[in-house]
Amino acid sequence: MVIRVAVAGATGAVGMRLASILARHSWFEVVGVSSSSASAGRPYGEFLAGTDVGRSLPQPQMDRLFRMVVEDSAHFDPAAADLLFSALPSAPAQKLEAQYARSTPVVSTSSAFRMEPDTPILLGGVNTEHTGLLETQQRNRCWKGFVAPKPNCAVAGLATTLAPLRDTFGLRSAVVTTMQAVSGAGLSPGVRAFDVLGNIIPYIPREEQKVACEPRKILGRMDDGRIELASFSVDATCTRVPVLDGHLMSVYVRTERPISPGEARRAFESFGRDAPTRGLPSSPKRTITVCENEAGPQPRLDRDREGGMTVTVGRLRSGGAEGLRYLCLVHNTKLGAAKGAVLTAEYLASRFLRWV
Amino acid sequence: MVIRVAVAGATGAVGMRLASILARHSWFEVVGVSSSSASAGRPYGEFLAGTDVGRSLPQPQMDRLFRMVVEDSAHFDPAAADLLFSALPSAPAQKLEAQYARSTPVVSTSSAFRMEPDTPILLGGVNTEHTGLLETQQRNRCWKGFVAPKPNCAVAGLATTLAPLRDTFGLRSAVVTTMQAVSGAGLSPGVRAFDVLGNIIPYIPREEQKVACEPRKILGRMDDGRIELASFSVDATCTRVPVLDGHLMSVYVRTERPISPGEARRAFESFGRDAPTRGLPSSPKRTITVCENEAGPQPRLDRDREGGMTVTVGRLRSGGAEGLRYLCLVHNTKLGAAKGAVLTAEYLASRFLRWV
Amino acid sequence: MVIRVAVAGATGAVGMRLASILARHSWFEVVGVSSSSASAGRPYGEFLAGTDVGRSLPQPQMDRLFRMVVEDSAHFDPAAADLLFSALPSAPAQKLEAQYARSTPVVSTSSAFRMEPDTPILLGGVNTEHTGLLETQQRNRCWKGFVAPKPNCAVAGLATTLAPLRDTFGLRSAVVTTMQAVSGAGLSPGVRAFDVLGNIIPYIPREEQKVACEPRKILGRMDDGRIELASFSVDATCTRVPVLDGHLMSVYVRTERPISPGEARRAFESFGRDAPTRGLPSSPKRTITVCENEAGPQPRLDRDREGGMTVTVGRLRSGGAEGLRYLCLVHNTKLGAAKGAVLTAEYLASRFLRWV
Amino acid sequence: MVIRVAVAGATGAVGMRLASILARHSWFEVVGVSSSSASAGRPYGEFLAGTDVGRSLPQPQMDRLFRMVVEDSAHFDPAAADLLFSALPSAPAQKLEAQYARSTPVVSTSSAFRMEPDTPILLGGVNTEHTGLLETQQRNRCWKGFVAPKPNCAVAGLATTLAPLRDTFGLRSAVVTTMQAVSGAGLSPGVRAFDVLGNIIPYIPREEQKVACEPRKILGRMDDGRIELASFSVDATCTRVPVLDGHLMSVYVRTERPISPGEARRAFESFGRDAPTRGLPSSPKRTITVCENEAGPQPRLDRDREGGMTVTVGRLRSGGAEGLRYLCLVHNTKLGAAKGAVLTAEYLASRFLRWV
Repeated sequence: MVIRVAVAGATGAVGMRLASILARHSWFEVVGVSSSSASAGRPYGEFLAGTDVGRSLPQPQMDRLFRMVVEDSAHFDPAAADLLFSALPSAPAQKLEAQYARSTPVVSTSSAFRMEPDTPILLGGVNTEHTGLLETQQRNRCWKGFVAPKPNCAVAGLATTLAPLRDTFGLRSAVVTTMQAVSGAGLSPGVRAFDVLGNIIPYIPREEQKVACEPRKILGRMDDGRIELASFSVDATCTRVPVLDGHLMSVYVRTERPISPGEARRAFESFGRDAPTRGLPSSPKRTITVCENEAGPQPRLDRDREGGMTVTVGRLRSGGAEGLRYLCLVHNTKLGAAKGAVLTAEYLASRFLRWV
Repeated sequence: MVIRVAVAGATGAVGMRLASILARHSWFEVVGVSSSSASAGRPYGEFLAGTDVGRSLPQPQMDRLFRMVVEDSAHFDPAAADLLFSALPSAPAQKLEAQYARSTPVVSTSSAFRMEPDTPILLGGVNTEHTGLLETQQRNRCWKGFVAPKPNCAVAGLATTLAPLRDTFGLRSAVVTTMQAVSGAGLSPGVRAFDVLGNIIPYIPREEQKVACEPRKILGRMDDGRIELASFSVDATCTRVPVLDGHLMSVYVRTERPISPGEARRAFESFGRDAPTRGLPSSPKRTITVCENEAGPQPRLDRDREGGMTVTVGRLRSGGAEGLRYLCLVHNTKLGAAKGAVLTAEYLASRFLRWV
Repeated sequence: MVIRVAVAGATGAVGMRLASILARHSWFEVVGVSSSSASAGRPYGEFLAGTDVGRSLPQPQMDRLFRMVVEDSAHFDPAAADLLFSALPSAPAQKLEAQYARSTPVVSTSSAFRMEPDTPILLGGVNTEHTGLLETQQRNRCWKGFVAPKPNCAVAGLATTLAPLRDTFGLRSAVVTTMQAVSGAGLSPGVRAFDVLGNIIPYIPREEQKVACEPRKILGRMDDGRIELASFSVDATCTRVPVLDGHLMSVYVRTERPISPGEARRAFESFGRDAPTRGLPSSPKRTITVCENEAGPQPRLDRDREGGMTVTVGRLRSGGAEGLRYLCLVHNTKLGAAKGAVLTAEYLASRFLRWV
Repeated sequence: MVIRVAVAGATGAVGMRLASILARHSWFEVVGVSSSSASAGRPYGEFLAGTDVGRSLPQPQMDRLFRMVVEDSAHFDPAAADLLFSALPSAPAQKLEAQYARSTPVVSTSSAFRMEPDTPILLGGVNTEHTGLLETQQRNRCWKGFVAPKPNCAVAGLATTLAPLRDTFGLRSAVVTTMQAVSGAGLSPGVRAFDVLGNIIPYIPREEQKVACEPRKILGRMDDGRIELASFSVDATCTRVPVLDGHLMSVYVRTERPISPGEARRAFESFGRDAPTRGLPSSPKRTITVCENEAGPQPRLDRDREGGMTVTVGRLRSGGAEGLRYLCLVHNTKLGAAKGAVLTAEYLASRFLRWV
């Protein structure tokens, strides 16, 4: 049995990746794509042609997807789909995702609902226990569906590495500097070559706020139908670097109990072995991979491990008795965006049994 | 009156920059250049031709420097010079700088002597009061000259910004992530394009150790003929980025007293106004420049301010009540290397009055 | 006596460079700036702040320019200016430059008028003898002013190097591959980092046509009040490369008479010595500079020679008895755009004596 | 039945790629690896660890290869192998390949033997009919084996595209500008980031000579036991660009008979359909792929088509009645080096039947 899915915001960078992954996914069938009114009415192939993701599709899927007519997101009827993926920009997402969720479950890559108290930020392999909050959301808002957002792309990597440290050592604070790839800025207009060639831009609008807040929610405790934010602090500095894909993060954590690089390594390596997402089609074998290269992880060399779905950590070094320094790398357009959303959808589908 | 100078290690990247600066400097006259035995005997023009620094020389200085014959550093007689600049690699520097210092003052860009207890790490505008330790060094070692090393290139920027924070707020700890330019790795062989294009290499051998240790000495207190290391801690992560020149650093400090971005800004801006180095030819007007661009400092846009001799800070943000986040940028081959060494030499020359 | 100038299209990349050059130029005084209606009414400082060119202005000029209010190009009255610089996009330039020229001389960086039969493409130091055609233009169109376009940025370099080859050896054909910097694409939106990082894009819309046609007009013969196109052919391939500034071109020419690299070198070196533009403020000492580096010219090393106003050639090699291969480099935003237009304006001003 | 192979020069960039391809190839078994005396005696894993190619090996092959002890190329006994791959530098290759060939067939990526009159330059799918010349070589030199070199990496792409043009239209001349990736310069030391970041280096030592000569031999006619060089001329300009992998070439050809872009396209598309290499494991389905992207081929987007074994052409444009302009792209480390050599070996193995 196949799950019928639609993609809202399908003509952006994330939306096109979503559509191309779903078109090849054995669980899903893409039955609709939508975008802003300016793009509505045109064949989807006009947008996909000339992109990496469009070109990499097998012929039959490509033909089908290219011929699909883009609908207007504002007047899109989600009823034809069992599940809707939203890659809408944050501004329209606020209203449209709510509109879709009246009838249909929505898995979203946008930030619109992330900090809503009745909404979990689902991160595959890390906090599936937050899924229950979606029922609160449905009740609160009288929705038949729900809105399940995934985290910010950098947070997807960071929070995954903080989880085992919190579990094993307790977490007091994290100081993070991100070095984020240009693909994280999307395509229209994205980052200008003139600005970033041979340069670093140490500012990404609204990003540090997300990196500071989302991990505390993702690692918060479900208690009595709500999430209690985790008590650690995150101080973030976010920079844009001339790298194509892959967000690298330099992390310094202080823990409640003594920690050593060796213990941290074991905590990273054993993390996620029993996660309920294990075995799902998009799940990596290892939630976290410890890099054996003493000069790693490196964006270009390590971002595509396990199909871009594992978080790679490396250079574990002491930072005092209760401190640890490490680097972590997340593929921002795979685990950090489209593929991460698909993993969440797989989990939700498998859990709720409505579909599979 | 002119100060006669020689450059040891003159055929490396730093050495060539030193020679070209000195050749144009009104206080100094280059009377000798040396390198390893493999290069000895060849005209210096063979090395300078085809480099930026060689080509940018005015004609008469170029002619003179190009015709100079490279001597063998191992058998170099420093007596002909009033002052010797050493840009030797660390390994030979250990022995040769000591040998030169028997007769002649040495200003060094190498790390060989930096952590010796009787040796200061001189950073123009920051710790001129450490100069007195050179007398201890002379006494201890029965030298007529001395060895005065400058800091590591990243430390030159970091320690400059930590100084006013320590003075005003007290300093408990700093967590630093550096994003260092390829020119910091020198020319032979330097960083391979294949390794760093579209990539970040989060490891620079032996660098984090220097960034952790040198600031504590530079900001230490001279007491009874020795330097007491400052009590704050530095936890560093050093990365190599595809940037030509300019080390950018993301810094998180915890202070002893409450700090706010506004207060920190004032401390940065007023720092160094009365430094004994003010007015020297290579001294910047502002030791620290606060960047007015909300997305700065950026290596390509800001590294050349004040001839590469000011440290640019930006994006001052709170990090809790006693925490501050900021970015700082140092031109690694100017303030961080050759020009920084020249400023130190100017100060030493002006102070000891032997020469000027 | 000062020439009052205005800049139309002043908020684009070229327009801002024009304004900043003119603001510092002793001959000129900027009395107005204009842009599209969307930008009109705002202080010009909003656009200049945060740009290289804005920041590099001396304080008094910066203050004056930043406070100037941007006018609407469509309703701009050119009468207040003795001379108008147009950096308008081609589409509006067609209509607006004609409108301005009714009353006022216009020096333009746009392509709108370049191929009009009664309009010369003026390239400083190369074809000042075409200036007379502006009188035909005035007569034909009943204008008091005129429109004097400069060439395409790549052509500014190419045609300069073809001129002495044509003069000395006769020119049959040129085969050209350009490697053009990202700054050539302007700022809105410019080239996306995601497209060009670690990549080459071998297509620039409408560029090859310009490179093929403009040199034949620039090097054409003025005859009886019209320009007879030169008879050589140009076959061009234009590519975009991850370089900030500086268009590098690989050129293969076939000549009518035998040519050798040595003879070509002499022709390049002696070219432009008697050009009527010699001695003007923006004129380089050498119209063409032969690069002494056997691996040059290189964009990053050579683009700024003589303030970006000389064309650098190198690697002169034989291409058969009547063939020559060489590389040439032009600073696309200096000689190739704003500064090149200023040089043309200086020449026109000095020649027509109306102003200076 | 398995063919036992050894790799000489196994610790360089090409050698490591060769070894890793061969380790996974069902026809071949790696029985020895050699390098200079400085590397001899060390486990091969010391060299492979930390490289892309080493890391991408499946576990059993990796274990086996990593444990292999590197032998000294100068004292290597080729007798244990049925076939030897040489990735030696040109200087030692001259002597050592001859020494190996006394007993053993050698497929070489070096340039040492390419221009020897009794040696073909074998390019899979293009000139298999030259294979017969190896018998002349054996006879001339009293070898049991032979030396079969593959072309220069840029030539592998260029000559492949010239072949169908010569067949269909006759070929008079080609003017070529290459934009070559940094991986083409190998690893020790390779291209310095400081030299090529944001820059183009329009000179690659000895490269233009190879691009001018090798295609004429590859496309020459076997006649009476010798190759008559093709009569067309090639004028080349070779540049190094900040691209990781993939040599892009801008080509202008003049033909003997009229040519149009449409006819050229058909010639490219139908080329190689009946090549004797079709169906071999490393052979692409299409020897030449015409790029459907109007702004292609682009190194980053197109280099990996068909496993890096097809040559991609694009932007076919007229260059006069008997002229054609186009771009072509070859993966320099796949078809242009290691994988190209393996395809040649597959063909030789299948043809001579000694092994398969």
